[in-house]
Amino acid sequence: MQSITAELVHQTIIRRPAESHKGTYGRLMLIGGNQNYGGAIIMAATAAVLSGAGLVTVATDASNFTSLHAQLPEAMVVDYHQTEFVSQLLKTMDVIVIGPGLGTDQLATHLLSTVLAHVQANQRLVIDGSALTLLATRQQPLPAVPIVVTPHQMEWQRLSGLKIADQTPTANHLAQQRLGVTAVVKAHHTTIYTDDRVWFNPGGTPAMATGGMGDTLAGMIGGFTAQFKDFTNAILSAVYLHSEIADDLAQSRYVVLPHQISAEIPKYMHRYSLN
Amino acid sequence: MQSITAELVHQTIIRRPAESHKGTYGRLMLIGGNQNYGGAIIMAATAAVLSGAGLVTVATDASNFTSLHAQLPEAMVVDYHQTEFVSQLLKTMDVIVIGPGLGTDQLATHLLSTVLAHVQANQRLVIDGSALTLLATRQQPLPAVPIVVTPHQMEWQRLSGLKIADQTPTANHLAQQRLGVTAVVKAHHTTIYTDDRVWFNPGGTPAMATGGMGDTLAGMIGGFTAQFKDFTNAILSAVYLHSEIADDLAQSRYVVLPHQISAEIPKYMHRYSLN
Amino acid sequence: MQSITAELVHQTIIRRPAESHKGTYGRLMLIGGNQNYGGAIIMAATAAVLSGAGLVTVATDASNFTSLHAQLPEAMVVDYHQTEFVSQLLKTMDVIVIGPGLGTDQLATHLLSTVLAHVQANQRLVIDGSALTLLATRQQPLPAVPIVVTPHQMEWQRLSGLKIADQTPTANHLAQQRLGVTAVVKAHHTTIYTDDRVWFNPGGTPAMATGGMGDTLAGMIGGFTAQFKDFTNAILSAVYLHSEIADDLAQSRYVVLPHQISAEIPKYMHRYSLN
Amino acid sequence: MQSITAELVHQTIIRRPAESHKGTYGRLMLIGGNQNYGGAIIMAATAAVLSGAGLVTVATDASNFTSLHAQLPEAMVVDYHQTEFVSQLLKTMDVIVIGPGLGTDQLATHLLSTVLAHVQANQRLVIDGSALTLLATRQQPLPAVPIVVTPHQMEWQRLSGLKIADQTPTANHLAQQRLGVTAVVKAHHTTIYTDDRVWFNPGGTPAMATGGMGDTLAGMIGGFTAQFKDFTNAILSAVYLHSEIADDLAQSRYVVLPHQISAEIPKYMHRYSLN
Repeated sequence: MQSITAELVHQTIIRRPAESHKGTYGRLMLIGGNQNYGGAIIMAATAAVLSGAGLVTVATDASNFTSLHAQLPEAMVVDYHQTEFVSQLLKTMDVIVIGPGLGTDQLATHLLSTVLAHVQANQRLVIDGSALTLLATRQQPLPAVPIVVTPHQMEWQRLSGLKIADQTPTANHLAQQRLGVTAVVKAHHTTIYTDDRVWFNPGGTPAMATGGMGDTLAGMIGGFTAQFKDFTNAILSAVYLHSEIADDLAQSRYVVLPHQISAEIPKYMHRYSLN
Repeated sequence: MQSITAELVHQTIIRRPAESHKGTYGRLMLIGGNQNYGGAIIMAATAAVLSGAGLVTVATDASNFTSLHAQLPEAMVVDYHQTEFVSQLLKTMDVIVIGPGLGTDQLATHLLSTVLAHVQANQRLVIDGSALTLLATRQQPLPAVPIVVTPHQMEWQRLSGLKIADQTPTANHLAQQRLGVTAVVKAHHTTIYTDDRVWFNPGGTPAMATGGMGDTLAGMIGGFTAQFKDFTNAILSAVYLHSEIADDLAQSRYVVLPHQISAEIPKYMHRYSLN
Repeated sequence: MQSITAELVHQTIIRRPAESHKGTYGRLMLIGGNQNYGGAIIMAATAAVLSGAGLVTVATDASNFTSLHAQLPEAMVVDYHQTEFVSQLLKTMDVIVIGPGLGTDQLATHLLSTVLAHVQANQRLVIDGSALTLLATRQQPLPAVPIVVTPHQMEWQRLSGLKIADQTPTANHLAQQRLGVTAVVKAHHTTIYTDDRVWFNPGGTPAMATGGMGDTLAGMIGGFTAQFKDFTNAILSAVYLHSEIADDLAQSRYVVLPHQISAEIPKYMHRYSLN
Repeated sequence: MQSITAELVHQTIIRRPAESHKGTYGRLMLIGGNQNYGGAIIMAATAAVLSGAGLVTVATDASNFTSLHAQLPEAMVVDYHQTEFVSQLLKTMDVIVIGPGLGTDQLATHLLSTVLAHVQANQRLVIDGSALTLLATRQQPLPAVPIVVTPHQMEWQRLSGLKIADQTPTANHLAQQRLGVTAVVKAHHTTIYTDDRVWFNPGGTPAMATGGMGDTLAGMIGGFTAQFKDFTNAILSAVYLHSEIADDLAQSRYVVLPHQISAEIPKYMHRYSLN
């Protein structure tokens, strides 16, 4: 088991080339946010935009459009009931994040199936939240594209079949190999399983134990994988920064809120991008 | 009559254990906010989230979803007209706050009755605002669970039958014993009545005399009782910090707004959590 | 013509008595904000709340509820189409502000008529914006209660019959005496006409020449007259502080926005309240 | 090719005359923001208001009213489906900005046609975003009023017929002369084409490569041309400041968000307005 290091983050977050435009930094779609959990997709999208994704579109219940735009006009919106329109847009994306506040109803199931059926080899997929619960009941194998799942321990139990007490690094790694996806298993110290290695994240604080923290991480992973070439390093860097920012904020706060982390992302990324 | 002390707050707000997750810090439902008083439940929920409650759900009129999420994506929402769904969710909660902006119509009455009928021994209940007016007209005894009421003097008159001029500590304490609930009677110096003692809050400033201040306190009490084991100390600590923050802000402000208090909660809690 | 002085403001903004509650600082209703000009009533209400009015209710088009609550949960809302409910609430108010973004349609006319027909001797009335245009076409005499109008020069032309070029202090004062209301005539240097005197405001900056500045002043006047006994001094103090804050902000800004002024009100009021 | 200089900006942003009012600084209408791209018109309007335009009206889909007002109460709103009302309002405007988030459907086409058919000699027109795509398919000559177009390179390809690789300053200038409008061609270093000259903007950073940056520039150009007499200098100053602010913010941020630029505009304009 190997620790993610500041050096790895530094190597990942490269200085942006002068000749570039928003397309250079990726087209990202986030899918989630039903009528009860709209805040989840707002927090994920906020993290994605502040992580520097070039163009962010949110497919969500239309009841969430206004609250999203009231704080994040930078994102475009589409009603996720317009599944045909969503399907067309999906083709143009570099990264798809599905799950924050998605719920587990029929529409949610249909959206996840659509994404898994049509995702292309040049696209990257982040599966989080409710979509993990849905994934756990699916029989079909996953498509052969870069996929990362971001379960907390109970979601990982559903997905891997491993009870929380049995979630040792070795058992988790075997489960990851079966699933064939990168797995970010969230806990006090988050561990990350890739095909050839087990990583652990040195940071993390109980001040992060509040609703929305995982949605924010999913959005950051979306934003980072939209910009940085190496899929694994992009994921590891997002995990590392997410908790590093929280650790710093927790120096003076009993609880750290998701939006407070997002607000700091551009400054932390800047520091790591310097030589 | 005994003053709440900084030492009591310090002993209550413990350092969070490293091995913990959002479930550790409590599931909290706030019920309130009709079409006219939606701001009240927003302010209460904001205070609860910033007090560190692990998972916060707001049951309110659907017309308040967007304004709530526009400033507090961390909270989940449910339409309080879906009383069946609300009832199911209630079972999973650690703390229920009912009343801020609830109003006194038939639905409000029904919701309060539902809560009182189904609240379980392992749950805690905060009754505030309009729900106190409804409570005053109820005949049935209250359920034997930890309950705190947070009336201002006029609401306490309705609840206790004591006219404001007659609300002496002794009379109030007798009334509290009859009711069998912890009573936070809000005034310039708030007094708190528990089964065995009368407390008074040393802080408080007329800069707090503005709409929403009580909603914020109710949310804080909800957040504190969701996290801290001793029910009385959690309540006393919320009351103390609420006015201490206001007193500090009033050093440079003629009026202190509820959201300004909420924004400071995490920093004050952090300070009290240090050894 | 006499200048408003810092000393007058200092004498007006008294230190709040310790034994007081939100009722002490006044119940205020603001009426305005149609489907096109909703921002106006939001800005007025924000200024009123930050000026320290105890309880603020906004009667407006229901389409403005969410945007209002998203930034000002401290205010209560009522649909101004429910004219019967509005009428009932009006009876309980200390101050009524009518006009910001009200428009001039039939409903607007009806609301203004209702207010003028039912306003009571112990209430105070602030008439601003579109309501001044409506007032200019009314034949009936105004009720004998404390009324202040806040026209800019074109609105004053409609109200007084004086063309802008003819709006000298003497002519304005004669017009004010005919109308029998306090008149705040807004210009580069605003002048204020009371029954016995003409005042001018020493402050003001062209950085204030932006939409919403007048709505903010109307809200401040509402908030000040809700709290401070002397009607004239409350008005003069609001006018003075409104431009003093703007002047200070304009030291570093080319344009000053209304919400930036409102945010500063509690700090300025605090300073004037000190001995 | 000539660089825009700080000196040119300094000469353009004059100190505001004391005797002035909001009408002095222009009436501006922004048209755009459909159900999917509402954020674009919010960001453009925010930039226009913070650039100091006197009175800002936004014609957009009604679904965007609340999110707009939740963050920018200073703007008035009108449903762009009420084309007759929009037409009437257009007559009273000094500057019209059309395009941010407008889309390319039938209504969008109709609105652009209306604007182009009725724009008057004393009005100025900013054409951005989707409206440029529509413009590229139009056959009719443009009206003889001051018009500026703000395409990025792909939009300029559609408009000028020049492939991106062929967009040399000389070719661009020839295309501009054919079109007869001022052209702001956005790229790493933006170039601006007027009838008699080619300018380039010295600033710009890849931290600006994010959605909404162009909408913000369009709003700034709207705000500047509403206030400053020389059309070309107003445009050049907006382009220069937009990137200067971004360059400064990028000293400590990996990505700069549109609203962060807008928040700084009043301070930068103030500095340039000093002698």
